[in-house]
Order: sequence, then C-alpha cells, then structure tokens
Amino acid sequence: MRNVDENTITQIVLARHAEGANPRLNQIMTSLVQHLHAFAREVRLTEEEWFKGIEFLTAAGHITDDKRQEFILLSDTLGLSMLVTAMNNRKPEGCTESTVLGPFFVADAPGYQNGDDVANGAKGEPCLVTGRVKGLDGEPVANAIIDVWQADSDGFYDVQYEGNADALGRGRLRSRADGSFNFRSVTAESYPIPYDGPVGKMLEALGRHPWRPAHLHFMIEAPGYERLITHVFRSGDRYLDSDAVFGVRSSLIADWQQHDAGIAPDGTKIDVPYSTLDFTFVLNPAHESAV
Amino acid sequence: MRNVDENTITQIVLARHAEGANPRLNQIMTSLVQHLHAFAREVRLTEEEWFKGIEFLTAAGHITDDKRQEFILLSDTLGLSMLVTAMNNRKPEGCTESTVLGPFFVADAPGYQNGDDVANGAKGEPCLVTGRVKGLDGEPVANAIIDVWQADSDGFYDVQYEGNADALGRGRLRSRADGSFNFRSVTAESYPIPYDGPVGKMLEALGRHPWRPAHLHFMIEAPGYERLITHVFRSGDRYLDSDAVFGVRSSLIADWQQHDAGIAPDGTKIDVPYSTLDFTFVLNPAHESAV
Repeated sequence: MRNVDENTITQIVLARHAEGANPRLNQIMTSLVQHLHAFAREVRLTEEEWFKGIEFLTAAGHITDDKRQEFILLSDTLGLSMLVTAMNNRKPEGCTESTVLGPFFVADAPGYQNGDDVANGAKGEPCLVTGRVKGLDGEPVANAIIDVWQADSDGFYDVQYEGNADALGRGRLRSRADGSFNFRSVTAESYPIPYDGPVGKMLEALGRHPWRPAHLHFMIEAPGYERLITHVFRSGDRYLDSDAVFGVRSSLIADWQQHDAGIAPDGTKIDVPYSTLDFTFVLNPAHESAV
Repeated sequence: MRNVDENTITQIVLARHAEGANPRLNQIMTSLVQHLHAFAREVRLTEEEWFKGIEFLTAAGHITDDKRQEFILLSDTLGLSMLVTAMNNRKPEGCTESTVLGPFFVADAPGYQNGDDVANGAKGEPCLVTGRVKGLDGEPVANAIIDVWQADSDGFYDVQYEGNADALGRGRLRSRADGSFNFRSVTAESYPIPYDGPVGKMLEALGRHPWRPAHLHFMIEAPGYERLITHVFRSGDRYLDSDAVFGVRSSLIADWQQHDAGIAPDGTKIDVPYSTLDFTFVLNPAHESAV
C-alpha cells in the first residue's frame, strides 16, 4: 500500500473492496475497477485525456435535470443500454422483442379511452394506431396497461419543450377483453437525439450522426406476464440501419400506411392526409422469465 | 444493424466509431466501449443495477460545482487517478515521485515571500516548512514556482468553506538562488475526503473508510524540468496503509518534528507547540520525459 505503482494499483484497490459487506456490489465494483484500469492501461491514457473525461462527465451532470438525462443518452449511444436490455430480456421465439426505454419515458401519464387522441395537440400528421396484446399461445391479454409515447413532427417529446407541463403524444390506455386497443396520435418521424450537450459533441467528434429512425414507444404491463418495453419502428426510414442508440430489431419494423384525407377506418372523417399503423404485441409469461 | 442483440452490439457500435475523423479518439472510445460492454456482460448487469448507475452519475454531476468535484473523487477512490498519474510520470531513480493532484488545487493562488505564513488564518498548530528544489545531478533549481496547499486541522480546505473566498493554507512562492525555500503554515492532519455525496455512499457500501493520511500538496514548476505534482505524507499517520485515494508512496513520507513553544529555527518566537518539516524535491529534466 505504501508502494502503489501502475502495476500494483489494481490489486490494491480490489483488496480494499473485499472488506465490503455486500457481495453483489463487490462483484460489480471488482469487475468495474478491473475494466476501468485495463482501459486506461490499454490506451495509455494521458493526464490531459483523463481530465477531458472528468470535464465530459461534469458537463453531462450539469445538463441533466428532471427533463433531460444526458447519462442515459451516453449509455444509449455507447450501446450499453441495448446490451443491458438484450441480456435481461431473453425470450422464447414468438414474443415481441424488447428495446431501449430511452430517456423520455414519464411515469403516470394521463389515462385515455380506446379511440382517444393522445396527441393532445402534438404537431404532426394524424395517425390511427390499432393493436392487440396477446400471450405466447395466442390468448388475448385483457386489461393490459399500455403506455405509449412519441416525438412530434419537429422531433421533440413534450418534456423537451421549455415550460410545457402538458402530456403531448403520450398517454396510458388499457386493452379490451379481446386484447385489442386503438388510439389516435401523430405520425412518427425520425429525429435527432438531443445533440446540444456533451454526448452530441462526442458523436460529432466520432463522425456519428445523432438520428433515430421514426418509432413509437410502448410499455405494456399485465398480471402474469413480463413487462414489455419496446418500440415499433417505421419501415422505409433512412436511419433504420444507423440508429444512434442501436435499438432497431427487424421484428419491430412495421408499415405506417399512408392515406388521403377522407373517412378513416374507425369511421371518423379526417380532413388531411393521415397514416395508420397496426401491430400485435406478444407478451412473455412471467414464469418464463430468463435468468 | 437491424438485428442488434447482446452478442453483436459491441461490434456494431465499434463499426460506427470507425467512421470518425480523430484516430486517437477512436482508439480511446473503442477500448472504452469494449471494456464497458465486457464489464456489463461479466457481471450480467441487471436493468435495476444499470439504473442505479445512472442515478449515481446524475447525483455526482449535481453535487459537482466549481468548488466540489465528485467525479475526481470517484476517479481517485477507484484508483484511476493514481494509475494515470503513475503511467504518465515514470521517472529515473532519484527523482521525487508524483502522486495525485486531488480535487482541491486552485490555479493562481496568492503569491508569498519565503518565510511568510501561508496559513493566512487556517486553523491548526503552526508548522515551519523548509525545503529545497534540486535537479537529478544535485544542481540547485533557482526561481522554481512552488504551489503549496493543504487542509486545516478540521480537515477542510479553504474552498470547502461555504462563502469563503480567501486562500487559507494555500499559496505560491519561489525557490531562492540556492534552490531553498521556506514558509509557515499549519501542521497537516489526516482528514476524510468529502463523504456526504454519492462517492461517500459508495465507500460506505463497500465497507471502505474515506480517510486520507496527513499530507501537504506541492506543485513545482521550473524551466527545463518536468512539472512535479506530489504530496509529502506525515510519518506515523494511521491511514498511511489505507489512503482512500491510494496516493501514498514510501519515498514521500517524512517526519513532522514536534516542538514545544519557544524560539523556532527561523528565529521567530512561537507561543504554542509547533512542528517543523524539511523535504528535498528532485525534479526530472524535461528531456528525460518518459513516453
């Protein structure tokens, strides 16, 4: 301990951890310290580069508030979020795959009835969404709680508008007895993740773009089933092969059908062009939980 | 890219980096992503644990301001700072070893003359420090800029006092023609690093204490020599073998001699017990810079 040097430091740090009382935390911190040190050794990190890292984390912390989460953006853009999501959501063939939660989920979104317009004034072309929630054997899942949230046609979620407290393009509804549900919102468009902070600078320095392909977020919960957190991605989007947060899975891509103004499938008259989307979600029984 | 899964995600992220324009940044980010993903796989990080990590970084960011640097504390307590310091300061035998800068350095500290009291009101027993700056061949280094800073007897640096703008126990002086210097301050005492934030919680959960052995910080710069950032540690301190930031090197430990009230070696009369410290700093010629 009195002769710490670049060769002995890692073991000295780990020996200190071994005194801890929480075995799982020790396991995590042991692996974290080993990889952190291995990284610094591998690239021979300079003191200036180390300090740039400190400045980066500081800037990420300072731009983060209850509406902006730069550390989740960082995790998303480094592929860590998708890795953690995938590892923890192994499922039988046939279940709807999971993808990243993203930084824009809001708990306790306003409740809506089937058929309601969750856009609530969000900018964009109207979109009629129909869907159903099923189990692996095809059984309908009634009364599932369905959270949906999305960006508007300018690429912003409601929480990104300074001073706005309204839920726009965001709501919670329940599936009917036959598992079906439907709502109205706006057509999903591709958008850049917030790139005016340190993560945006990092992407730019790496020659990476900040765009995500158009998608609609879903979180679906029902007793007896694993909670599903996923997106439905819009086919044909130019960013499907280069999602800034690596969230795309081919099974989650669906067609947004384009329609001229007129009578919509739900009988309502729409005076402007609109789109429709239909998607079936298959939940994993809770007892099939992968370990 | 449309079939990202837990096995393919790392290569997919790295392939995106490869488009970047800055080879060194790509090298760093490639290694960082590989180790970050390997860590998550190795411990099978759960989504809850991932979110605890996001919350930890957020809390660290929010407690950090221009006076408090939680990310440097984190780096220090995980041994990363000492590793980076050691890797970047390999020196010929005989040079004074480097150690961590720590989070309490302040640029442009007030200037003092040799013999002055840099305590400037900092609490603690008086301490008379004498020293000299030399080169590897024993040549005196005249006119070296010597920054010194330390905690007071309550364990706090000046910048930790809310509302205080004065430099206490902190100053900058220059070596004389023969390389010597001397100043008065307070006797260094062991103290805990700030443990009221997320890093303190982490240490507690790991069963680690937050204490640092008593030390005096020095940064010494002179033309033709590498800048030296180091501490002098106080022999006999109970935390020399368990420094919370892993900064101790045996060559940096020195005796603080204790004295009764009376006439000090510099001829001044001191009415209370005091200590003296003497230390010789050996700078590395700039052309010997390790790569």
